Amino acid sequence: MSSLFSREHLYSFTENILLKIGHSREHAQLGASVLLAADIRGIDSHGVARLSGYVRLWEKQRVNATPIMKIIHETPSTATLDADAALGLISAPFAMNIAIEKAKQCGSGWVSVMNSNHFGIAGYHSMLALEYDMIGFAMTNASPLVAPTFSKERLLGTNPISVAIPALHEKPFVLDMATSSAANGKLEIAQREGKPIPLGWVQDKDGNDSTDANAVKNGGALLPLGSSHDAAGHKGYGLGALVDIMSAILGGANYGPWVPPFVTFLDPLPDLPGKGLGHLVGAMRIDAFRPADDFKKHMDNWIQRFKSAPSVDISERVLIPGEPEFILTEQRLNNGIPLNENVIKDLKILGEKFNLLF
Amino acid sequence: MSSLFSREHLYSFTENILLKIGHSREHAQLGASVLLAADIRGIDSHGVARLSGYVRLWEKQRVNATPIMKIIHETPSTATLDADAALGLISAPFAMNIAIEKAKQCGSGWVSVMNSNHFGIAGYHSMLALEYDMIGFAMTNASPLVAPTFSKERLLGTNPISVAIPALHEKPFVLDMATSSAANGKLEIAQREGKPIPLGWVQDKDGNDSTDANAVKNGGALLPLGSSHDAAGHKGYGLGALVDIMSAILGGANYGPWVPPFVTFLDPLPDLPGKGLGHLVGAMRIDAFRPADDFKKHMDNWIQRFKSAPSVDISERVLIPGEPEFILTEQRLNNGIPLNENVIKDLKILGEKFNLLF
Repeated sequence: MSSLFSREHLYSFTENILLKIGHSREHAQLGASVLLAADIRGIDSHGVARLSGYVRLWEKQRVNATPIMKIIHETPSTATLDADAALGLISAPFAMNIAIEKAKQCGSGWVSVMNSNHFGIAGYHSMLALEYDMIGFAMTNASPLVAPTFSKERLLGTNPISVAIPALHEKPFVLDMATSSAANGKLEIAQREGKPIPLGWVQDKDGNDSTDANAVKNGGALLPLGSSHDAAGHKGYGLGALVDIMSAILGGANYGPWVPPFVTFLDPLPDLPGKGLGHLVGAMRIDAFRPADDFKKHMDNWIQRFKSAPSVDISERVLIPGEPEFILTEQRLNNGIPLNENVIKDLKILGEKFNLLF
Repeated sequence: MSSLFSREHLYSFTENILLKIGHSREHAQLGASVLLAADIRGIDSHGVARLSGYVRLWEKQRVNATPIMKIIHETPSTATLDADAALGLISAPFAMNIAIEKAKQCGSGWVSVMNSNHFGIAGYHSMLALEYDMIGFAMTNASPLVAPTFSKERLLGTNPISVAIPALHEKPFVLDMATSSAANGKLEIAQREGKPIPLGWVQDKDGNDSTDANAVKNGGALLPLGSSHDAAGHKGYGLGALVDIMSAILGGANYGPWVPPFVTFLDPLPDLPGKGLGHLVGAMRIDAFRPADDFKKHMDNWIQRFKSAPSVDISERVLIPGEPEFILTEQRLNNGIPLNENVIKDLKILGEKFNLLF
């Protein structure tokens, strides 16, 4: 069961909750924009469904609602940002604007963010570069849920990568992918429906392949993109590891098994090697390589050529990364955003706590 | 059947062949170094086994042995290099050195290479950054062999990505992976042995899953990392597409189905949208983000923690990206490099053509 809500309603509720826990108006609006971008693009697991989780992290004093973010290291094309325990929803766009300014000055800009928290969908941040005719990059590490190839233990998060690339008349190319085989959200859907999941998504607590949607809950792990070793899971592990290192070791955040859990019923481990979790964001100015219009014309050509490839099945065609999300965006802005009953209940309870009507 | 050869012998033979077709001593030695790096690291498909293919491209005047490489566009942290139809073996390290110089000046450096050819293993180029305490990046597009999700047609190469990251006492982290599920080399082994291949590596000419090692030869295609749509093949397609765009559209090389084929029995398509094929290389100075020694200590900690994870099977443990290649390097430098009889025959014929004894 799900009901439809307008973007305006959800945005305003989210903004008000973030204000209630102490954020400035500017930060509350930014946080609400990032969460609503997920709901509108159809990444339901990363939208308002996360709001009560962020509030619980604030209650545990793991999120700072009045952060003073500081650049602690800098060169003309790079910077490291101490996010002062801000929500990543707020620190990542802040860092992305620094990267964009640096790219304006010297062609490209890269900002490592440490002492941060969950940043919502990576695609929001990478897409900030598009209006400047830049290619945007965003990645983050996250709570350990994924087992490296041959490991029983979870050592990596779903560690997403997003890259946004502008086109001329076509919609931009927006890659936004977890480096695990399946997102946790897909497991939750199967759990609700009581259905088995395809082989290659998870392993059980002993490291065996499993089709049990509850395997991760019961001590198992998500598998990296590519699944088992034979099917190239070592490549997905390598990508997830790369994201962990670039997001966290570069700037001084926690990495691997030390990434603080998103859920508040688990405490962070003792003797942490860094602060909070980490992101890396970047921007490359297209005309630092060739005239932007030439590039964008060829992007249109690339997109049209790929869309028109003969397809395996008459009911499908080749999709461009980001295309399904642009289609959903249009639908949801017109028709509303569907929330399932558990999320609605959760938001109602959250509203009551702060005297806000959901 | 295979026989063992010393690195010195293969290096000297390769250098001499490259000299014979007109390369300068410097370029011949560089090309030989890149090819031998593949043989030593165990990427047999990208070493001296490719040499006769490069010569055939030169005979077809698709490779220029006396290139005058020029920077055609530049900012403090970026450049675009016209490789003048050089072998990528030669243009990519040249570009990498420009990237490293730019990173010294302003924290990071990115060089797009157009009008180039096959560049051997990506890992050779990314690893050039290591001795400067930089993180190195290299990617390239390649002849179309991979079908995007839902496509019958091959539109992407195996488009590899490599990232090399220094550690302190541990060996560096070296990711070097094709964005396809399996490399062509694995198919060739199965073909020689007359064995079927696992599901998820290839599709047949109608786009059906196949276990036939000859499927690609017969009009089928390699599958992207992640294999079918259910198993997240759309992510591998997205990564391969990203590499294609960043390697080629950024600088003005050919992309997608227009990438000139490596095999000389196929001619490039008419009306090409760019010149040659393309690469992107980059370097990020670690101390542009935090002191290099801090970073490298944490890399050691990361590597040791991952290596010591409890493993699924007592006979295996978690490997660090690049670790199998470092083990092979030691073995092959000590014991010699195994070449199979077809490669030996091919090199003997090549030698006879140029009056060189293999």
